[in-house]
Amino acid sequence: MSSWNHEPPYYAVMFSSRLRDGEDDQYQAMAARMVALAERQPGYLGLESVRDADGRGITISYWTDEAAIRAWREQVEHREARRLGREKWYRWFSLRVARVERQQFGESDDRPVS
Amino acid sequence: MSSWNHEPPYYAVMFSSRLRDGEDDQYQAMAARMVALAERQPGYLGLESVRDADGRGITISYWTDEAAIRAWREQVEHREARRLGREKWYRWFSLRVARVERQQFGESDDRPVS
Repeated sequence: MSSWNHEPPYYAVMFSSRLRDGEDDQYQAMAARMVALAERQPGYLGLESVRDADGRGITISYWTDEAAIRAWREQVEHREARRLGREKWYRWFSLRVARVERQQFGESDDRPVS
Repeated sequence: MSSWNHEPPYYAVMFSSRLRDGEDDQYQAMAARMVALAERQPGYLGLESVRDADGRGITISYWTDEAAIRAWREQVEHREARRLGREKWYRWFSLRVARVERQQFGESDDRPVS
């Protein structure tokens, strides 16, 4: 997700984590399922996620407002995934909720954007 | 940076990017230099950065307030690095400034946190 048609203000949930044992199939299936579920939530705007070979990851999801974030936090499968994450997958994590106040996008002009 | 002793509110700069050609030595040296410089700026709180094998990266830096972010934006070497980034390194990027309103941390209790 490089560019964006939603103007600030909106909200971001920044989730940083480190996996204990790398990204196994079960973890990947859970992560993909959570993306699919988030996309169906009211107020969902988008998501960016990167994880490196050492299991360090940052996922940022974007939402219209705090009520949308609260509703997603209460979603039943998402609650269960978070419980499993704490128990099984994550060595550590941090979660921050922030109000996006401004944004800027750039692209090189000689290559396609993916 | 898994845990944290700074209470909200504070500010986050979320920088997402994709490199054109992967992470060469010159890019890595620039990125390391920028971290070293940021750490010397007034109002700097911390930084998290992840880049995957496809060259997709998310870096989040944390600052006490917007004035600190503006001062970092005007830092001379940082300006030059951003110019080079647009010209040479990044296929695309996005930058968002957000006010962190709440946070949560977790660690597994059976393994050391790194």
